[in-house]
Amino acid sequence: MFKKNLNVGMVGYGFMGRTHSNAFRKVSNFFENEHQPVLKAICGRSEANTRAFADTWGYESIETDWPKLVERKDIDVIDICTPNDSHMEIAIAAAQAGKMIMCEKPLALDTAQGEKMVAAVEGAKVLNTVWYNYRRIPAVTMAKQLIDEGRLGRIFHYRANFLQDWTISADLPQGGAGLWRLDAAAAGSGVTGDLLAHCIDTAIWLNGSLNGVSGMTETFIKERRHTVTGKVEKVNIDDACAFLARFQNGSLGLFESTRYARGHKALYTFEINGEHASIKWDLHDLHRLDWFDHRDESKLRGWKSIHITDGDQPYMKNWWVPGLQIGYEHSFVHHVADFLANLAGNKSTSPTFREALETTRVCDAVLASAKSNQWQEVGR
Amino acid sequence: MFKKNLNVGMVGYGFMGRTHSNAFRKVSNFFENEHQPVLKAICGRSEANTRAFADTWGYESIETDWPKLVERKDIDVIDICTPNDSHMEIAIAAAQAGKMIMCEKPLALDTAQGEKMVAAVEGAKVLNTVWYNYRRIPAVTMAKQLIDEGRLGRIFHYRANFLQDWTISADLPQGGAGLWRLDAAAAGSGVTGDLLAHCIDTAIWLNGSLNGVSGMTETFIKERRHTVTGKVEKVNIDDACAFLARFQNGSLGLFESTRYARGHKALYTFEINGEHASIKWDLHDLHRLDWFDHRDESKLRGWKSIHITDGDQPYMKNWWVPGLQIGYEHSFVHHVADFLANLAGNKSTSPTFREALETTRVCDAVLASAKSNQWQEVGR
Amino acid sequence: MFKKNLNVGMVGYGFMGRTHSNAFRKVSNFFENEHQPVLKAICGRSEANTRAFADTWGYESIETDWPKLVERKDIDVIDICTPNDSHMEIAIAAAQAGKMIMCEKPLALDTAQGEKMVAAVEGAKVLNTVWYNYRRIPAVTMAKQLIDEGRLGRIFHYRANFLQDWTISADLPQGGAGLWRLDAAAAGSGVTGDLLAHCIDTAIWLNGSLNGVSGMTETFIKERRHTVTGKVEKVNIDDACAFLARFQNGSLGLFESTRYARGHKALYTFEINGEHASIKWDLHDLHRLDWFDHRDESKLRGWKSIHITDGDQPYMKNWWVPGLQIGYEHSFVHHVADFLANLAGNKSTSPTFREALETTRVCDAVLASAKSNQWQEVGR
Amino acid sequence: MFKKNLNVGMVGYGFMGRTHSNAFRKVSNFFENEHQPVLKAICGRSEANTRAFADTWGYESIETDWPKLVERKDIDVIDICTPNDSHMEIAIAAAQAGKMIMCEKPLALDTAQGEKMVAAVEGAKVLNTVWYNYRRIPAVTMAKQLIDEGRLGRIFHYRANFLQDWTISADLPQGGAGLWRLDAAAAGSGVTGDLLAHCIDTAIWLNGSLNGVSGMTETFIKERRHTVTGKVEKVNIDDACAFLARFQNGSLGLFESTRYARGHKALYTFEINGEHASIKWDLHDLHRLDWFDHRDESKLRGWKSIHITDGDQPYMKNWWVPGLQIGYEHSFVHHVADFLANLAGNKSTSPTFREALETTRVCDAVLASAKSNQWQEVGR
Repeated sequence: MFKKNLNVGMVGYGFMGRTHSNAFRKVSNFFENEHQPVLKAICGRSEANTRAFADTWGYESIETDWPKLVERKDIDVIDICTPNDSHMEIAIAAAQAGKMIMCEKPLALDTAQGEKMVAAVEGAKVLNTVWYNYRRIPAVTMAKQLIDEGRLGRIFHYRANFLQDWTISADLPQGGAGLWRLDAAAAGSGVTGDLLAHCIDTAIWLNGSLNGVSGMTETFIKERRHTVTGKVEKVNIDDACAFLARFQNGSLGLFESTRYARGHKALYTFEINGEHASIKWDLHDLHRLDWFDHRDESKLRGWKSIHITDGDQPYMKNWWVPGLQIGYEHSFVHHVADFLANLAGNKSTSPTFREALETTRVCDAVLASAKSNQWQEVGR
Repeated sequence: MFKKNLNVGMVGYGFMGRTHSNAFRKVSNFFENEHQPVLKAICGRSEANTRAFADTWGYESIETDWPKLVERKDIDVIDICTPNDSHMEIAIAAAQAGKMIMCEKPLALDTAQGEKMVAAVEGAKVLNTVWYNYRRIPAVTMAKQLIDEGRLGRIFHYRANFLQDWTISADLPQGGAGLWRLDAAAAGSGVTGDLLAHCIDTAIWLNGSLNGVSGMTETFIKERRHTVTGKVEKVNIDDACAFLARFQNGSLGLFESTRYARGHKALYTFEINGEHASIKWDLHDLHRLDWFDHRDESKLRGWKSIHITDGDQPYMKNWWVPGLQIGYEHSFVHHVADFLANLAGNKSTSPTFREALETTRVCDAVLASAKSNQWQEVGR
Repeated sequence: MFKKNLNVGMVGYGFMGRTHSNAFRKVSNFFENEHQPVLKAICGRSEANTRAFADTWGYESIETDWPKLVERKDIDVIDICTPNDSHMEIAIAAAQAGKMIMCEKPLALDTAQGEKMVAAVEGAKVLNTVWYNYRRIPAVTMAKQLIDEGRLGRIFHYRANFLQDWTISADLPQGGAGLWRLDAAAAGSGVTGDLLAHCIDTAIWLNGSLNGVSGMTETFIKERRHTVTGKVEKVNIDDACAFLARFQNGSLGLFESTRYARGHKALYTFEINGEHASIKWDLHDLHRLDWFDHRDESKLRGWKSIHITDGDQPYMKNWWVPGLQIGYEHSFVHHVADFLANLAGNKSTSPTFREALETTRVCDAVLASAKSNQWQEVGR
Repeated sequence: MFKKNLNVGMVGYGFMGRTHSNAFRKVSNFFENEHQPVLKAICGRSEANTRAFADTWGYESIETDWPKLVERKDIDVIDICTPNDSHMEIAIAAAQAGKMIMCEKPLALDTAQGEKMVAAVEGAKVLNTVWYNYRRIPAVTMAKQLIDEGRLGRIFHYRANFLQDWTISADLPQGGAGLWRLDAAAAGSGVTGDLLAHCIDTAIWLNGSLNGVSGMTETFIKERRHTVTGKVEKVNIDDACAFLARFQNGSLGLFESTRYARGHKALYTFEINGEHASIKWDLHDLHRLDWFDHRDESKLRGWKSIHITDGDQPYMKNWWVPGLQIGYEHSFVHHVADFLANLAGNKSTSPTFREALETTRVCDAVLASAKSNQWQEVGR
């Protein structure tokens, strides 16, 4: 089968650069689409590092100045993998150059930036998506199907948390490569934009919009040495954030995120309680979905642990055989697979910039509430 | 060994009447103390029901009017198992009669009542305790020991919830025997006093006082038939309640309770994250404690599920052999065992009325915050 | 309600003496029957110890010579809690005296003894039962119901093991109080009669008779100091035993037991795989039953963990409320409850001596096979 | 970095063809080695299917006759992914042609074949390996490290099983593409060579050689339609197989495999009990290792669930960040990575043909024992 090429130009070669490159390289071995991604160019500031990354992943060329990449005629899609503070500028330039855009999450540093980005891609009518990859873990996608099929009935509760423990040591510096997530200038916020944004994106997808929130943030370690300046500086990110929420559908929400929960490396969990059934999921065992159905015969009711590896479960017919699990990286492959499928119909892939902006609005409301000690409505 | 009798007079023969009676009957088969409880009298309004209960449990006599019980010379301790709205009156009378008092939780309908009760028992200098039984589940007691030994280091997070699903049906009436917990007049509040009170008592015990809270409550089913009046009436209890908290020790708290979480019968869970270690527990597998210690050898770190059935774990040397679990009822036996041990030293057993009052103060602050949509300080 | 007394005379006051006494004392608080047990007499060789036990549990009298107990007119049922080597003698005497008999498991040291015991009770027409208590863990009883209802279809596999780790230290002596299970003279065999007997009893109950077995035994620690003689003596028990089996219904069996499995205190587990459904259970979480039903909707298939605490699950309506677990000791209470219920109809309670003899036959076949290195048919 | 090419010629494009191709394509993105695999040629009998497979995976050329592939000068390594009955012939030809060989497991139909294959590769001095991929699941590799470090002390027990449920329906035919595993002519045996071979390979690796075995096999469905002949024919494979074993190190083994265990898709589990510590693993949650250490502080002993996703755990520093799991396919990538690393030193990669032959010897002994109903020594 002859395939059309989708020429990818990626900006940034950090952790997300690897997950995306792997996804672009693998997708056509497992999913059939009209287009196949071609790793055309990788762009980074350090020529040596960019070259090494290109060698490892098989990029055909490198750039060290992103505006040049954006202008190249042989690039179809710009994939933005840089720290959050450069998303807006790159995205707007790419839109103006008529490129499709795949942007790492969170969309932007804040709502104001995000609104400009939405205006840019919609004005330029370019296909766009934001890499909230957890939607495409098969268990999470199946949760969405079960909810859309109405199996839960009226929803009463939604709770989610994202717990890590990697910043507990006071010796850990802030800023610079690998640690920009601890520097508010580069990241915008701490766990709110980094971790809660994932929880919020999934929540909106599964349970609809949030009306109002009451938030609380804390910075446990107040000062850290800054890698770039070499000085001990005030830490401006939030180390932990929790919030109460009310959804438009009348259900109550409870969200929490922290990098100070010993024992949890990347424990993203959610649970949804409906009138008839409940769902639980956690990222540490991402290939399982827990399901409770009150309509089961009374004495046999219980939580069922569903091993999501069967061909009739989302995305799984493209992988191995029942019982054999896939992992974290596959969520990115699925995102690309869906992007390619939508591309054939000239459709943007969800979450689009506009959809991802709603998550940023919630983050901003949470941070505002945490400052005011009052409930805060979510902006529209 | 010759034992002194502790003559028990119990008021109320509902669910808690059974758990307490069982505890009084069993304790001396398993724990050695100077005193042994004697089931002297049970008091209830229905003579037939009270007689039947006395027959089942071996009470020597019955009363149908609690003031008479309180006045009886042959009674040493009054055990209050009635709905919350009569705790205050009975407790104050019992204190004035010089009886020891064991009172079901929550202490009172609200802080104002609780303060009067504390004044009464402290004025009369009678031994007193409140049956927050979950402290004496061996796993929970061991959590307390581990924390007191300083093994967790600085605490960052405390989260707890108590999830049930028994009131989801709109057909369930409110009020009357077995359902007084759904009637605000008898119960004071809904899940806040019934379930969150347990979570708060444990939290204060394990993690110290709470400074401030931000709460949210909801009543999902707005009207229910009232068993007593026969009419459909407004439901005044909270069906669900969640709150954010800040503890005096600087840690953050997250609490939630509901009777609308499908799949959870009585799932009380808590988790504590400290600098060095974390602890998790849940009531559905109450004989296990989950423990994570960051000081373990790096590649072998993980959550350990400790089966709390060994002789060197709290209370367990008095029961069977390693591997053989005890259950819910045993927490009450332990409470009585501790009461008897303290009695020998003329000491009240924790939580005393004064200690339990702090939990009621937190409940009141949560409910006030839920009304005001603002953070609320916890009263002292 | 007026109840008839069932006067209990117990021989032996070790670990099983405690579990039985507790069961006799509690049963009438939770189960309604025509008869209520009365702790009439306890018999042991040491007068001081027997007296202390009587005081703790409320026995009305003591004996230090079991033939005297057996002859007492005021005793209705003899409960045998002694080491295995005295079961036969006591049981036959009790039967001849016309007493009902409740005998600890295993029935006897071997098949020859067991046959005499069956002849004695059947000849004397006295009610009899053997305390294979695990049948009456509610989860296990529910497994039996599900199988009897035909829900599993044709059975393919049955596997069970009973794993402990308490004899790994070579310093542990053999023989004497508390350690008679390590002395073949008192116990007959090692883990085979002690632990596998439980697995076999349950297996026969749930899956029918075994036709043939192929066994393997091992004694890891060859010599231990004997508590009674004070000398280092050869260990004659089996420390570990495993066997393959073929059931009459065509299914395959796999059984294993050991006291050398680090990490397992008393982990009795079984799993049954049928054409349509499978069941798993383990004693370390005895209040749960795992259930897989292939007839579930394909994409929602999974193992369900059923929390056996609801009123429509076996025995549970007599205890607390949904979500609140019972423990190990309750299996004995249920055994007594069923004994009392059967007593009203003058029926022996399963497993009777005759039924328990089948388990002993299987044990003997396993031990014979382990010696011959060949498959062995199970005697009839 | 300039890399040398390792030109791969693969025979067979079924399920294993996919797992191997994926591994060859990915390895150099994640592991640094002197050589990088190049997908030079794929060989299959159907030209159309072979072409389609080549297109999907990017093979440079195709062959439809394996002897031609073996003779090609531009091929460095022959990867054998065909059904078991052609392993010997292809391997011997490849060895004679001086090619390196990577052969799917099991090595051969039986010991006699395997011995010829070992002679061929050793005679030709070509690098060789057999794809027992489960050794290279990071959790399994870590188990090997823990054992080699002596942490378990003397080993008492080894138990393993491999449970599936995909052949329960009597309507499933035997033979032909996708179903050759049900045809004894192509597969040699049923679950013994297919599933138990994995368990045995791991067991020998972790716990050393087996001296003797006692086996039992069963074919539950006696006849099935044969896809190739179209007729209902006798089923000659074993549907289930279990065996007892004695290891050279004195420990006892228990192995079981079946395709008739409802609820298990591909549940490969093993547990090892040592004097000081125990290990458990299961393929359905392959990214976890369960660890019990008796040397832990007594009251804190318990089974620890280690989430094998950290950089200091085997292979994991090459993948993502802590908490983010990999899956089944990665075990093959690791096998190739190790093959490339060994290639640099001109060393065969374990298990070599010689090592894999030992597994086949055990399988043959098990099948012989099942026929004779007696213990069988394992040949050397």
